[in-house]
Amino acid sequence: MTSSPPLTAATDLTLRYREVRNLTEALAAPLGPEDQTVQTMPDVSPTKWHRAHTTWFFETFLLEAHVAGYEPFDPAYGYLFNSYYEAVGARHPRAERGHLTRPTVADVAAYRRAVDGVMTAALDSGALDRVADLVVLGLHHEQQHQELLLMDIKHVLSVNPLRPAYVERDLGPAGPVPPLGWIDRPGGVTTVGDPGAGFAFDNERPRHDVLLAPHRLADRLVTNGEWLAFIDDGGYRRPELWLSDGWATVGAQGWRAPLHWLPVDDGWHEHTLSGTAPVDPARPVVHVSHYEADAYARWAGARLPTEQEWEAAVAGSPAAPPSFDPRFVTAGPHPRPVADDDPGPLRQAFGEVWQWTSSPYVGYPGFHPAAGAVGEYNGKFMSGQMVLRGSSCATPPGHARSTYRNFFPPAARWAFSGLRLAADVDPAAP
Amino acid sequence: MTSSPPLTAATDLTLRYREVRNLTEALAAPLGPEDQTVQTMPDVSPTKWHRAHTTWFFETFLLEAHVAGYEPFDPAYGYLFNSYYEAVGARHPRAERGHLTRPTVADVAAYRRAVDGVMTAALDSGALDRVADLVVLGLHHEQQHQELLLMDIKHVLSVNPLRPAYVERDLGPAGPVPPLGWIDRPGGVTTVGDPGAGFAFDNERPRHDVLLAPHRLADRLVTNGEWLAFIDDGGYRRPELWLSDGWATVGAQGWRAPLHWLPVDDGWHEHTLSGTAPVDPARPVVHVSHYEADAYARWAGARLPTEQEWEAAVAGSPAAPPSFDPRFVTAGPHPRPVADDDPGPLRQAFGEVWQWTSSPYVGYPGFHPAAGAVGEYNGKFMSGQMVLRGSSCATPPGHARSTYRNFFPPAARWAFSGLRLAADVDPAAP
Amino acid sequence: MTSSPPLTAATDLTLRYREVRNLTEALAAPLGPEDQTVQTMPDVSPTKWHRAHTTWFFETFLLEAHVAGYEPFDPAYGYLFNSYYEAVGARHPRAERGHLTRPTVADVAAYRRAVDGVMTAALDSGALDRVADLVVLGLHHEQQHQELLLMDIKHVLSVNPLRPAYVERDLGPAGPVPPLGWIDRPGGVTTVGDPGAGFAFDNERPRHDVLLAPHRLADRLVTNGEWLAFIDDGGYRRPELWLSDGWATVGAQGWRAPLHWLPVDDGWHEHTLSGTAPVDPARPVVHVSHYEADAYARWAGARLPTEQEWEAAVAGSPAAPPSFDPRFVTAGPHPRPVADDDPGPLRQAFGEVWQWTSSPYVGYPGFHPAAGAVGEYNGKFMSGQMVLRGSSCATPPGHARSTYRNFFPPAARWAFSGLRLAADVDPAAP
Amino acid sequence: MTSSPPLTAATDLTLRYREVRNLTEALAAPLGPEDQTVQTMPDVSPTKWHRAHTTWFFETFLLEAHVAGYEPFDPAYGYLFNSYYEAVGARHPRAERGHLTRPTVADVAAYRRAVDGVMTAALDSGALDRVADLVVLGLHHEQQHQELLLMDIKHVLSVNPLRPAYVERDLGPAGPVPPLGWIDRPGGVTTVGDPGAGFAFDNERPRHDVLLAPHRLADRLVTNGEWLAFIDDGGYRRPELWLSDGWATVGAQGWRAPLHWLPVDDGWHEHTLSGTAPVDPARPVVHVSHYEADAYARWAGARLPTEQEWEAAVAGSPAAPPSFDPRFVTAGPHPRPVADDDPGPLRQAFGEVWQWTSSPYVGYPGFHPAAGAVGEYNGKFMSGQMVLRGSSCATPPGHARSTYRNFFPPAARWAFSGLRLAADVDPAAP
Repeated sequence: MTSSPPLTAATDLTLRYREVRNLTEALAAPLGPEDQTVQTMPDVSPTKWHRAHTTWFFETFLLEAHVAGYEPFDPAYGYLFNSYYEAVGARHPRAERGHLTRPTVADVAAYRRAVDGVMTAALDSGALDRVADLVVLGLHHEQQHQELLLMDIKHVLSVNPLRPAYVERDLGPAGPVPPLGWIDRPGGVTTVGDPGAGFAFDNERPRHDVLLAPHRLADRLVTNGEWLAFIDDGGYRRPELWLSDGWATVGAQGWRAPLHWLPVDDGWHEHTLSGTAPVDPARPVVHVSHYEADAYARWAGARLPTEQEWEAAVAGSPAAPPSFDPRFVTAGPHPRPVADDDPGPLRQAFGEVWQWTSSPYVGYPGFHPAAGAVGEYNGKFMSGQMVLRGSSCATPPGHARSTYRNFFPPAARWAFSGLRLAADVDPAAP
Repeated sequence: MTSSPPLTAATDLTLRYREVRNLTEALAAPLGPEDQTVQTMPDVSPTKWHRAHTTWFFETFLLEAHVAGYEPFDPAYGYLFNSYYEAVGARHPRAERGHLTRPTVADVAAYRRAVDGVMTAALDSGALDRVADLVVLGLHHEQQHQELLLMDIKHVLSVNPLRPAYVERDLGPAGPVPPLGWIDRPGGVTTVGDPGAGFAFDNERPRHDVLLAPHRLADRLVTNGEWLAFIDDGGYRRPELWLSDGWATVGAQGWRAPLHWLPVDDGWHEHTLSGTAPVDPARPVVHVSHYEADAYARWAGARLPTEQEWEAAVAGSPAAPPSFDPRFVTAGPHPRPVADDDPGPLRQAFGEVWQWTSSPYVGYPGFHPAAGAVGEYNGKFMSGQMVLRGSSCATPPGHARSTYRNFFPPAARWAFSGLRLAADVDPAAP
Repeated sequence: MTSSPPLTAATDLTLRYREVRNLTEALAAPLGPEDQTVQTMPDVSPTKWHRAHTTWFFETFLLEAHVAGYEPFDPAYGYLFNSYYEAVGARHPRAERGHLTRPTVADVAAYRRAVDGVMTAALDSGALDRVADLVVLGLHHEQQHQELLLMDIKHVLSVNPLRPAYVERDLGPAGPVPPLGWIDRPGGVTTVGDPGAGFAFDNERPRHDVLLAPHRLADRLVTNGEWLAFIDDGGYRRPELWLSDGWATVGAQGWRAPLHWLPVDDGWHEHTLSGTAPVDPARPVVHVSHYEADAYARWAGARLPTEQEWEAAVAGSPAAPPSFDPRFVTAGPHPRPVADDDPGPLRQAFGEVWQWTSSPYVGYPGFHPAAGAVGEYNGKFMSGQMVLRGSSCATPPGHARSTYRNFFPPAARWAFSGLRLAADVDPAAP
Repeated sequence: MTSSPPLTAATDLTLRYREVRNLTEALAAPLGPEDQTVQTMPDVSPTKWHRAHTTWFFETFLLEAHVAGYEPFDPAYGYLFNSYYEAVGARHPRAERGHLTRPTVADVAAYRRAVDGVMTAALDSGALDRVADLVVLGLHHEQQHQELLLMDIKHVLSVNPLRPAYVERDLGPAGPVPPLGWIDRPGGVTTVGDPGAGFAFDNERPRHDVLLAPHRLADRLVTNGEWLAFIDDGGYRRPELWLSDGWATVGAQGWRAPLHWLPVDDGWHEHTLSGTAPVDPARPVVHVSHYEADAYARWAGARLPTEQEWEAAVAGSPAAPPSFDPRFVTAGPHPRPVADDDPGPLRQAFGEVWQWTSSPYVGYPGFHPAAGAVGEYNGKFMSGQMVLRGSSCATPPGHARSTYRNFFPPAARWAFSGLRLAADVDPAAP
């Protein structure tokens, strides 16, 4: 695959800037001021905060740093909308982002317009040519926040007893559960990491060789139907299936099913961005933690793949699945059943759910963070988190790559996270 | 005084209903949807929640209970907007009121209009004549929430680094600090509690005799200027001045001054509903806890009054101070310096700050809660709280009474709470 | 009654000092070093800490302050064994008393012997005559810790799945549940507080007049049998019976019965200082909180007495019940059924369980703490606690008084606390 | 090296059993009943608990499972002394191990003697020949608890303001700080994991090939002197040196130096098992967390080694350093300066401090836990922890191996944990 494909046929950076920035606004459009303001857990950020923070990123790292004479839109915004950049200064506590009623949603829209005006002028003038890489980083950063915006608003709406939809739409009838196949993968030395042909985050570098043992990978994602069998077999009640920390979390949080599943008289329903619906057995399971994915794999007599196994298997696959949902912008994304025309070999590699791996998130051999404040982007989080690969139905078009390394703590469930099974190959077998 | 005076010259209940309900809407008018939605600590409720909960009170206890054929505006609202009535059923957790983005502010306005329509028709038709007392209770309930709305939005805006004002206005220049006088009060048997001439809450009954020792009461409130002297004398650093629980709270919360005070280069500033301003030494100190009031009194060689001492002293005083601020509705209320024309004897008894007493909040001898669900209104909170007397600048017109018993936990500071000193009279002195 | 009777016929202070100090050692005698060291909740202190702290009290307030040339036994002990006296300096955190393995139990015994040697020599020499009141305070202080020691070790042993006994003994067979009678009490002005004839704590002063309404008091304590009926009638499941804070505590703590009650197949058993035994319906209920006592009284159509009502009723009664258990020292105390020969009128006023009142613990009118560091003894705790009256089976001989004011937070249950009912008299009844 | 060497020349299992069991008793001998009972944080277990739990391991997995007719010493002990084996049943909460005053220290000694009697008889009779591997596992398990016992009692004594020593001894004068050298290590495929020549835990298997990049390893441990330079250079105040979780922990815990370091007038002192002494610049730094080790390495322009790099470098080295301290049993162990006669190449690989690696603790490719309850020994902890390699001064003789994988959470500091630096080799350099 070619990494980081253009969003469209557009090749100039101004156009690309406009497209990405517009998509954020389109994603916020169905949400009123109340929806955009609240924070329902420390991990969640308000919609308007995402809109402002991504703007702050361009303002701080491009306009203030590289456009002579630029005056900040509001000097207080640096404190309010810095996420975690220690090098840039103090910041509002993360868990209190939902306490900010001002700037209002309208103020944030004005902030975006003002920065966009200066940015596009600077881009057009060539003033930012020297730091085009930083502009591109800002766009990928904003795409990450587009997915976070969707994860977060899904959580915000989920805790409301009224169970409002982000966008009303019919998810369609439940499909048949597809059979599971296995792909045999040889071992040996393989090369992983950013090949350098396009944009990549620093955590995808340096490209390096790894030694893999022979193994097998499932040719599709684990489905809701399979997860229901896990539940019915006591999956959430049997400590022998779980990592110790996972079992403690099951008890402390009272987990009985994936996040956003609701018990109803006739079984399980699921809160989606399009409202509440019966769990569809054919769709990939989503909103499970690493702990749950790991327990499921053990129950299934399998394991999770390593991130290197996953990457080696999809090298050369197209990142965008053939049936990419054209309604992404206006509809609440939700993972779909495996498509008949998914060419594979690793079907559903992209565009449905992020796939938990068994790999802790650490730096590649020889890893060095990028220079400057943006060096805080990835490296300092390389502790206590697990890598997910692929992309999800909420990942913006053009953002996925086979070398992409997403990461979350093992108890996190509010991302669009699911799993694909792997298995060892018995070396003694013929 | 006559307790519970009419809000205006209006004598009919429909008019009074409209006046009270309209005041709530006027108080919310300066606030946008974002402002009305968030909750910055568990004690705080969102503005739109106050607007909806007061409506739910009328809908539940009047319309559903006493208007034949009434259909609830939205069946889900009973769960969302019940505050603490166990008898009425389950309810949304208090600490998560700020998680609700829906119903929106516009939805809540529609809810109010709909209930108001049925209520006023029912009132006009005489259908509620039989339960007029319950309607009046609902109006006093809504007045309490008007003050809570102001306390709560003051907190919401205070945690915002932008320090927005609820309503911009000029508080005027600092005045001279008035001298403090003492009023000698004889002891003996006196009668306290609701005399039965108008509305009163159940916790003001039964009227009963109490035996008081001779004592003295300060003729005005403690001022910011006096509080600054307390701070300068190490008031927040000397454990011998404090109750044990209070001293623990000082340490745990890092208290150095009243809530909403901000250290600046040249001294202390104060967050008010009209923005941030230098602390005015002439105004009554406000936003202090019972612990702080008690420590201050000890430092001053005095004590807090009992609620009976306070009530006995103001019996016969007019509840509305002569200079009641006509701008209550449209301006952010803030306590004012003692007025030259305050007739006393207990100047500033009403309309500036609630005055902490030394009396724990318990039932009067022979107290019985009102029958039915509204019996939960007061009685079940008679534990762990302290009585405040008088009223504040944020108390709606017509709501104050000399027998009124306000109450908050001893660590609470977000109410408009201050203090007036009292002292023992040495029985051996000539 | 005469308050503060001599422990025995002894009239000299040295003898009294020895008797009190020896009783502490006798109470600790059944406990090994392990038992004496641990702390099972922040409220509990280790046995050896009680033994050392009471010694520190004499060392600090008598020997260091009033015996010329006295050198502290160990300079570090001031930090370790100061409980809460801010005026005396810093101290080890209360919740970490159970982290101290040194000084050992043997070290503490040596500390006691050393201080006792100097104290008795100083007492005999008359060197402490001038501060005899402080010595007596120290003895009453140590008696309070004797009861705390028993409460605390009962808790320590209770959390052990082996359920060890402090002292093995047979509690005897269950007795018949005695009938309940009511005593009519007239209202009027009565005088309460320390009459000045013997020792009293500062919180019992000044003696003063109070005005009581006519009321009734139960002639005995509430029994386990009555409490079982409360449980069976849903007492712990009906919010309408509870104060709001109490109901929240029931939920948070999962209360279903008094502390130390254990569900077994055939009903409820009780952990006692003599081991686990079936709950005896005839004995007074013990280890209930104020919240539970208040809920029970409401369920029973009654209320708790005020502390003034209680004191007025027992004025003139002997503090020591006629059948005071001679085995106090060597046996694990446990409340007994009402005795046939209890003369009343308020049977079981002393020596069985402390009786929760409806009175918050505040200072009497004109109260001033004692001068100096010992002024911290009582006054600073006058917030957030409720008064209990009488005494319990774990109160040392000679410590009870009709004016005695014990106090605990309303959720506390590890004291030997029970209740006696009171009721209003309808003024309209003939 | 040969893995799992005999403890002594003894070759028979009974003798080895006695040696290991006796060492535990010798380690507990300096501690009184009070010392052996308390728990100063959830991670710490009481000494007597370690003594009982190791005994329970033999009783449960050997005697109950494999000796016909064996009756448990006390049926309650299974609940009290099961650590974390879900398959074996319920157990006492870990954080409440310090609440158990019974069984006493003497009871635990009797328990040990009773189980030792049956075990040695069974071993001598050959009844356990079939499960000799399980006996050996029990011995290695007990050795792990010997080190835990020392870590834990060091913590227990450290929180005591009296700062008692476990065993008094003179640590000797401070030595010269030795120079640091680097060892160049080639990359390539190397084999790691248990070679199968002796005992190894399941987490050391399967042996497998890994691909390493060229790198360098420090030839000795980081010293206290180097750590002081890190502190002096603002190491604990500069967020850019830290992982994000680490920096949050620095703030939350107030870290300013390694655990057990105490600021004194003239610099830093250190709590050791032999009492408090000035920090010796020549000795290896100990009691640092992974977060601190990682920050130090970043500050030093280096990194931590991977566990594979470490293992490859020491393959073939003797596990026991030449100067192994013969006083291990009777003296409080403390890490020593690098010895002149340490042959290297990786000096101080064993016997001083465990060395944090950059490797998260996960299963080796193809890892499967052991069958049965002992399968819970290692596998379920493979989440959220980091690998340490080598061994420490508190590791019992004969317990270390070059393939040994120790593990702790990244914030843990109470183990004898330090670090050795590693560095990348620039592939472009000549």
